Amino acid sequence: MVSQYPPNLRIRLPAFILILEAALILIFGVFVSYDHSQNLTRDYPVFQHVNLMVILGFAFFLAFLKRYGFSGTGFSLLLAALGVQWAVVVEGFLFHFSAGKIKISLQSILTAIMSIITVLISAGAMLGKVNLMQLIWMALVEVTVFAVNRWVAVNILQIQSHVSVMHAHLFGAYFGLMVSWMLHHSSLSQKAEKERSRPVSNMFAVLGTLFLWIFWPSFNSVLIKEEEKKWTAIYNTYFVMATSVIAAFSFSAATNKNGKLSMAHIQNATLAGGVALSFSASIIQQPWIAMALGLAAGMISVLGMACLQKHLDPALKIHDTCGVHYTFGLPSLLGGIIHIIVILTNHSNNLSVFGYSALIEVGALSLSLVISLFSGFITGLILTCKLWKAPPVTKYFDDQAYWEFPHLAVGF
Amino acid sequence: MVSQYPPNLRIRLPAFILILEAALILIFGVFVSYDHSQNLTRDYPVFQHVNLMVILGFAFFLAFLKRYGFSGTGFSLLLAALGVQWAVVVEGFLFHFSAGKIKISLQSILTAIMSIITVLISAGAMLGKVNLMQLIWMALVEVTVFAVNRWVAVNILQIQSHVSVMHAHLFGAYFGLMVSWMLHHSSLSQKAEKERSRPVSNMFAVLGTLFLWIFWPSFNSVLIKEEEKKWTAIYNTYFVMATSVIAAFSFSAATNKNGKLSMAHIQNATLAGGVALSFSASIIQQPWIAMALGLAAGMISVLGMACLQKHLDPALKIHDTCGVHYTFGLPSLLGGIIHIIVILTNHSNNLSVFGYSALIEVGALSLSLVISLFSGFITGLILTCKLWKAPPVTKYFDDQAYWEFPHLAVGF
Amino acid sequence: MVSQYPPNLRIRLPAFILILEAALILIFGVFVSYDHSQNLTRDYPVFQHVNLMVILGFAFFLAFLKRYGFSGTGFSLLLAALGVQWAVVVEGFLFHFSAGKIKISLQSILTAIMSIITVLISAGAMLGKVNLMQLIWMALVEVTVFAVNRWVAVNILQIQSHVSVMHAHLFGAYFGLMVSWMLHHSSLSQKAEKERSRPVSNMFAVLGTLFLWIFWPSFNSVLIKEEEKKWTAIYNTYFVMATSVIAAFSFSAATNKNGKLSMAHIQNATLAGGVALSFSASIIQQPWIAMALGLAAGMISVLGMACLQKHLDPALKIHDTCGVHYTFGLPSLLGGIIHIIVILTNHSNNLSVFGYSALIEVGALSLSLVISLFSGFITGLILTCKLWKAPPVTKYFDDQAYWEFPHLAVGF
Repeated sequence: MVSQYPPNLRIRLPAFILILEAALILIFGVFVSYDHSQNLTRDYPVFQHVNLMVILGFAFFLAFLKRYGFSGTGFSLLLAALGVQWAVVVEGFLFHFSAGKIKISLQSILTAIMSIITVLISAGAMLGKVNLMQLIWMALVEVTVFAVNRWVAVNILQIQSHVSVMHAHLFGAYFGLMVSWMLHHSSLSQKAEKERSRPVSNMFAVLGTLFLWIFWPSFNSVLIKEEEKKWTAIYNTYFVMATSVIAAFSFSAATNKNGKLSMAHIQNATLAGGVALSFSASIIQQPWIAMALGLAAGMISVLGMACLQKHLDPALKIHDTCGVHYTFGLPSLLGGIIHIIVILTNHSNNLSVFGYSALIEVGALSLSLVISLFSGFITGLILTCKLWKAPPVTKYFDDQAYWEFPHLAVGF
Repeated sequence: MVSQYPPNLRIRLPAFILILEAALILIFGVFVSYDHSQNLTRDYPVFQHVNLMVILGFAFFLAFLKRYGFSGTGFSLLLAALGVQWAVVVEGFLFHFSAGKIKISLQSILTAIMSIITVLISAGAMLGKVNLMQLIWMALVEVTVFAVNRWVAVNILQIQSHVSVMHAHLFGAYFGLMVSWMLHHSSLSQKAEKERSRPVSNMFAVLGTLFLWIFWPSFNSVLIKEEEKKWTAIYNTYFVMATSVIAAFSFSAATNKNGKLSMAHIQNATLAGGVALSFSASIIQQPWIAMALGLAAGMISVLGMACLQKHLDPALKIHDTCGVHYTFGLPSLLGGIIHIIVILTNHSNNLSVFGYSALIEVGALSLSLVISLFSGFITGLILTCKLWKAPPVTKYFDDQAYWEFPHLAVGF
Repeated sequence: MVSQYPPNLRIRLPAFILILEAALILIFGVFVSYDHSQNLTRDYPVFQHVNLMVILGFAFFLAFLKRYGFSGTGFSLLLAALGVQWAVVVEGFLFHFSAGKIKISLQSILTAIMSIITVLISAGAMLGKVNLMQLIWMALVEVTVFAVNRWVAVNILQIQSHVSVMHAHLFGAYFGLMVSWMLHHSSLSQKAEKERSRPVSNMFAVLGTLFLWIFWPSFNSVLIKEEEKKWTAIYNTYFVMATSVIAAFSFSAATNKNGKLSMAHIQNATLAGGVALSFSASIIQQPWIAMALGLAAGMISVLGMACLQKHLDPALKIHDTCGVHYTFGLPSLLGGIIHIIVILTNHSNNLSVFGYSALIEVGALSLSLVISLFSGFITGLILTCKLWKAPPVTKYFDDQAYWEFPHLAVGF
C-alpha cells in the first residue's frame, strides 16, 4: 500500500526536522556552554536510571498496539531526542541564563529529560492517530509551555523546583487529552481491529512497564538535594509501586465478569502509585501511608479504565489510545490532593503558616491543569489544520503508513 | 473458552489479596518506620541491579512457555511485590525488632528482595500448574520459613548474614520441587504441546537470562561489607559467569545427538556458575578457582537437564517445568561443598578451628535442605486441598485460564 | 532437517571450546591474581553500563534476522564470555605484566570487555554466514591483534590509553569486512529470503539498539580519569546521540522514494554519532560541535546504507550482513578526521607542537586501519579452509543449522 502523498513526506519531513536541528545547533553555538563546577559522581547512575525510564521504558510502554510497534518505539525516541535539546534551551533561558550564556550541567539535562515525559504521555493519548510532523510540533509547544508553567510555579508561586517537575504527569495527560479531543473522529467510537494488542506486542509493553516500575524510585528522588529526604522518597516510592501492583491485580480480576486479568490494566495501574506519590514522596514519613496511597491509585486507575474509558470517554468524544488519563491524569490529581493533606497534617500545630503553603500547592496544581488544558486546546486546533497532512482514519494505528516493510509483513 | 468457576475467582482472588494487603498496611502502620542513619549512596545503584534481576530478570526468565508469557511475567511481578512487603515484616520482627518498632533501611529492603528469589525459583518449578491463589499462599509460607531458617543459621549457628541469604537458591529449588512432587499429576509424564516454548518466547527468556547473568556480580557482592571482599566477590562472579557460558555451549552441543545447541540448556546453565559461587564468592582468592567452578557448575546443569530431567524426574514423579533443580538446586549443592573445601584449604594450618567452622557450614546447609524439603512437603499438602480450586490439567500452561484476550489470539 | 555432519560438530565443537577453556584456566592459575589496591565504588555502576551494552546491547542488536535470533544473541554471548577471558590474558601480558604476575582489577576487566566489541562488530559483518568454530577462532585472533595494535599505539606512538581503546569500532569494522570479503560467495549478491528481518525480530533489535544508545555516554567516558574531562565526554556523547537520531529519521525518510522510514537505518544510524565522537568526546568543549558531528555521522550512516551498501558492496564483492561499515566503519573514520581537526583548533596558537600530536593521531589511525585490514585478510584466508566445515550457502542465516527446535517451528 503506497502512501498517498509520497513527495510531500519525502521532502517536508526531513526538511522540517533538519531546519529545526540546524536552528538548535545555532542556538547551542551562541548561548550554551558546559558548567564544570559540580562533582556529580553520586548522580550519574541515577541519571541513567531516568534515561532508561524515559527512553527505553516509554518507548516500549507505547509499543502495545499490534501493528504500531515501530512507530511506538521509533517516534518516542525521536521525540525524546529532539525534545531534550529543545527543553535544555527553553529551560536554560528561563532558569539558567546569566551574562548572555546558558551553563548546562547534568542537572539541566536531567530536568530536560524529565520534562520530556509530558510529551511522551501526550503522545500516548494520540498514539496511532497523528503523523510525525504533528507530534514534533506538539512536542515543541508542550515543552515550551511546560517550562513556562514551571517557571511561574517556581519563581512566582515559590513551589520547590523538584515538585514542579513532578507536575509533568498531570500536564502531559491533560494536554494530550485536549489535543486528542480536538482531533477526535467519529469513527474512533468503535474500536478498530488495528487498535488492539497482540500477546507479543503486549510482552514488549510489559518490558517497558517493568523498566518504568523498577526505576520510579530514582525518578521521584533524583532531583531532591537533602540526603535524608532523598532516601525517604526512594523508600516510599518502592512501597507505593509494590502496592500498586496489588491493586492492579485485585481490581483487574474484580472488574472482569469472568474474574480474568487484563494485561492493559496491569500495565497501566502498576505505575499509578508512582505517579500519585510523586509530589509527596519526600515528605511522607510513614511507609503505610505510601502503601495506602499506592493501593488507592492502582484502584482508581483500574476502575477508570474499566468504567470511565468505556463509557465516559466516548460520551465526551475523547479517544485516549493508551489510557493516559487513568495512568497519569487521575492518579496525579489524587497525588495532588494527598500532597496538600500531608502538608497540612505534617504541620497541624501551625496551620496558619502551612495552610498558606498548602494553598500555594493548590494554586500550582490548578495552574498546571488550566495551562495544560488551554495549551492543549490551542495545539489541537493548530493540528487540525490541513497543512499537516494528518493520516486518514484508515491509516490509523498502522506502521505501514510510515515505515517501509520489505515484504509487506502484516503485523508481528 | 470461559473459565469454569468465574464467580469464585472474581470475588475470592481480589478479596484474598486485598485483605492480605490491608493486614500488611496495618502491620506497617503499627510497627514499621524508616531508619535514616545511613549514608547509602554507594549501595543504591547496586540495589537497583538486584531489583532489575529479581523483578525483570526473573519475570522474563519465566516467560519461556509458548502460551504462558503473561502469567510468567505478571505472576512473578505480583509475587515479588507482595513477597517483598511480607519479607520486610517477617525479617523485621526476627532481625530488626527493638523497642516495639521495626526500623527499615535500604539494607532491609534489599535483603527482602533477595529472599524473594526463593519464591520465584519455587514458582519456576510449578510454572503453569497452579493458580495465583496457590502461588500467593506458597509465597507467604516460603518467605516466613526462609526467614526463620536464616534466623537460626545466623543467630544459633553463627553463619555470616550475607552467606545465609545465599541459601535462597538451595531453599527455593528444593521447596519448589517438594511442592511440585505433592501436586504431581500422572498426565504430566508426557510433555504437553503447551509445555513447549516458541522461538519468540525463548527470546524473551534470553532477555531475562541476560539480565540475571549481567547483574549476578552485584547479587553476590551487595551484602558484603568489607570493601576488599566485595571486590573479590565481584571479580570472581564475573569470571564464574563467563565460564558457565563456555560449559553451557560445550555440553549442550555434546549431549545432542546432532551436535545442536538447546536454548533451554543455555538459559539455565549460563546461570549455574553464579549460583555455585554464591557461598564462597568473597573468600576465593584466585580467579582460576572461580573459573573451574563455573565450568563444573555449567556442566552439572546441562548434564542434569539432558539426563536426569528426562529419566530421573518421571521416575520420582517430579515435574519441574523450568528445570530449577538443574539451575539452582544442584549447582547450589556443589557450591556448598566447594565452600567447605575453600574454608578448609584457606586455613589448612589451623584445621582444628576451621574444621569447626566448616562443620557449621555443613550444618547450615543441611538445615536449609531439610527445612526446605519439609516445609515444601507441608505446603504441597495444603495446596492439594480442593479449596484452592487448582486449575484442571487441560488448563495447565495456558494464559487463557487467567487472562482476558480480546480476540482469543492463540499464543504469540 | 538434519545437519550434514553431526558427529563432527558434536565432538569437535565441545572439544575445541573445552580445551581452550582449560588452557585459559591454566594460564589464569599460573599468572593471574587480583589487585585490591583500588577504591572503585565510583566506577562499578558504569562498569555495569558497559557490560549491559556489550552483552545485552550487542546480543539483541544482532538479533534482527528473521530466523537467526538464537544465534544472534547466543553466539554473541559465547564470543563475549570467551573473548573477555582471552583479552584479560593478552592485555595482561602486554600491559600489566610484572614480576611474573598479571594483576587484574576492575579497569582490566573493563578494558577487556571494551576490546570485545571489535569481535562483536566483526561478527555483525559475518552474521549468518559462518559457524561457531570459525567465530571463536576469529575472536581469538582479533582480540590478540587488537591488543598488540593498542600496545604499539600506547607505548610507541604515545597515544592516550583511553583513545586507543576507541579504535575498536574502526578495527572491528574493517577486520570484519576483510574476513567477509574473503568468505564471499557469489549467491550472496541476491538478497535471500532468510536474510530479511521480521517486525518482531526488529523489535528485539530496537531493544538492543536502545541499550547501546542509552549507555554510550558511559562507554565514551568510563576510561577517562580526570573528572572534568569525564563529564565533558558524558555531556558531549549525550548530545551526539540525540542528533544522530535526528539525522537517522530525516535521511531515512529522504532516501526512500515514498518518504517512508526504514528500521534498519534507524537502528544503525542512531549509533553512528557515538562512534564518531569516541576519539574526541573529552576534548570538544562546545556542545554544538558534538551536535553537528552527530548530524554528520548519522547522515553518512544512512546515505552509506542507502547508496553504497546497495551498489558499492556487490561491486567490491563484500557482503556486510549488519551494515557494520556504515554504523562503525565510516563514522569512525569521520571521527578520526574530526579528532585531528579538534586537536589542531584547540591549540591553534602552537601549531608546531600540536601539529606533531595530530600527526601521531593520524599515524595511530592509519596503523589500526592497516593492521585490521591485513589481519582480517589473513584470518579470512584461514577461515576459508575446508577444515572448519563452514555451513553451506543453503544454511546461511538459519538457526536450524545450529539449534535444536522441538517442533521445527519456522522462524518467529
